Amino acid sequence: MNILYLLDLIGTAAFAASGAWVGVRKHMDLFGVLVLGVVTAVGGGTLRDLLLGDIPPFSLQDETYISIALAASLVVFANRRRFETFEKPLLYFDAIGLGTFLVIGTTKALEFQMGLLGAVLMGVMTGTAGGVLRDVLANQIPLILRREIYASACIAGGVLLVVLEQSGAGRTASALLAAGTVITVRLLAIRYEWGLPKS
Amino acid sequence: MNILYLLDLIGTAAFAASGAWVGVRKHMDLFGVLVLGVVTAVGGGTLRDLLLGDIPPFSLQDETYISIALAASLVVFANRRRFETFEKPLLYFDAIGLGTFLVIGTTKALEFQMGLLGAVLMGVMTGTAGGVLRDVLANQIPLILRREIYASACIAGGVLLVVLEQSGAGRTASALLAAGTVITVRLLAIRYEWGLPKS
Amino acid sequence: MNILYLLDLIGTAAFAASGAWVGVRKHMDLFGVLVLGVVTAVGGGTLRDLLLGDIPPFSLQDETYISIALAASLVVFANRRRFETFEKPLLYFDAIGLGTFLVIGTTKALEFQMGLLGAVLMGVMTGTAGGVLRDVLANQIPLILRREIYASACIAGGVLLVVLEQSGAGRTASALLAAGTVITVRLLAIRYEWGLPKS
Repeated sequence: MNILYLLDLIGTAAFAASGAWVGVRKHMDLFGVLVLGVVTAVGGGTLRDLLLGDIPPFSLQDETYISIALAASLVVFANRRRFETFEKPLLYFDAIGLGTFLVIGTTKALEFQMGLLGAVLMGVMTGTAGGVLRDVLANQIPLILRREIYASACIAGGVLLVVLEQSGAGRTASALLAAGTVITVRLLAIRYEWGLPKS
Repeated sequence: MNILYLLDLIGTAAFAASGAWVGVRKHMDLFGVLVLGVVTAVGGGTLRDLLLGDIPPFSLQDETYISIALAASLVVFANRRRFETFEKPLLYFDAIGLGTFLVIGTTKALEFQMGLLGAVLMGVMTGTAGGVLRDVLANQIPLILRREIYASACIAGGVLLVVLEQSGAGRTASALLAAGTVITVRLLAIRYEWGLPKS
Repeated sequence: MNILYLLDLIGTAAFAASGAWVGVRKHMDLFGVLVLGVVTAVGGGTLRDLLLGDIPPFSLQDETYISIALAASLVVFANRRRFETFEKPLLYFDAIGLGTFLVIGTTKALEFQMGLLGAVLMGVMTGTAGGVLRDVLANQIPLILRREIYASACIAGGVLLVVLEQSGAGRTASALLAAGTVITVRLLAIRYEWGLPKS
């Protein structure tokens, strides 16, 4: 489980950095940048825990998450004049976070006796709701509702995970395959600019 | 209770369609349209359950709701070029949903020992919070905060329901009268363009 | 404790008035103005209670809060043409509310076994999340994410309170000192137009 925890923290830092960067671009002050970083990093998992009834949520039970999110946001704020150089590599860490959050959320929902649809939903929410909250606070239509294969990568991984668990595959293998699927689809989508049909 | 469940599902589909339609008009992709449909349909009741402490909320306990919301949103997305023809009839189903949601929410809050003010609030929230979340995600000021007798129809029905229950009227009769009031006021408001005093 | 309850109600009325005023300026109807008033007044504490697991939240357990928030919002709506004369004095009552909410939130989080970081966060959230929700509903970037020493006054008071409680100072003295710090910093910030570094 230690590798999953490590990936989780890496994803938390990457999500926080992306949130803090939106705060910088919206000309927020230091407090606003920190809030956007923390909300982006732990918002999805916190909402999941409220819905599953695991209260207080993970983010208040283990303060490592919020500490890392604050630190990552501070780093972004301090380096805000040369952040463009970090933007590209950050996408890779963000993809790692997306896959990890999906696996953690889906697995937890199954442990809490959710149905298969609910489990996939909770996994996707864990990966995406933080970014939605970030965009709502920044007063813009959430990016993932408009374009980019981001949630779709999550859904693919979540469905795969649920199918594998149902068919009796080992937990570790299922988790690795699902997370790998999310990360691969996400990176391919960035590379080839994939998108869903639009209105 | 079966008739109430049926009306609840009709309302869920109508609310989902209205949410999906906002997504289409905001040029969201398929995922965004589905999210707006589901959030509009189950957002109010889910928030109510979080506040009452009935966790996991109804939307995760009975996956019929989210399944129907997804199906209705898909239908809207697939017919998005000729949706205008559906807009008018949809208002009637939406009014049915509003009355049903109000009755379900108020009754549930009374069962959870809320006070009378709290019960009316929970009923109104069940009927309106999904639409508020929809508008927040679509980055517009929630429609019901600005105009239309929508929440007011809910409040009228909620107060009536609480008064009837307090005065010992039968549960079924009270529910029917309250839902009928909401639906009637709502449809009259559309017909005669009623509005509250504005700032 | 009675003085704390009184200050809490004063803060509730002041927060509701500020929320209702935003609703008026955004040309909302009466219902919208009431919603913004109530959400601003009880939103922060309600979110805190959901996260701590104290459900139903304070705002549904003691209906005094919502009643006062509704009354204050009605007063603002009725006097909306000459509200400018109230704006300046309202800032003082708002500062009292900020200090009181911070102390109540931080203390409650400590009682619920939160860590020190979590306790300060819950205190700051109690004081500020209502205003954030208000601005999200009014479709504007939350003011406290962009400027003004508002959250910072809260953080200073929260850290002071946690340090005092840890070092064994009396609960009443700690609460008074922390609330006084928030109020003083907030009023000085208004007077001298202090701000945090911006992006």
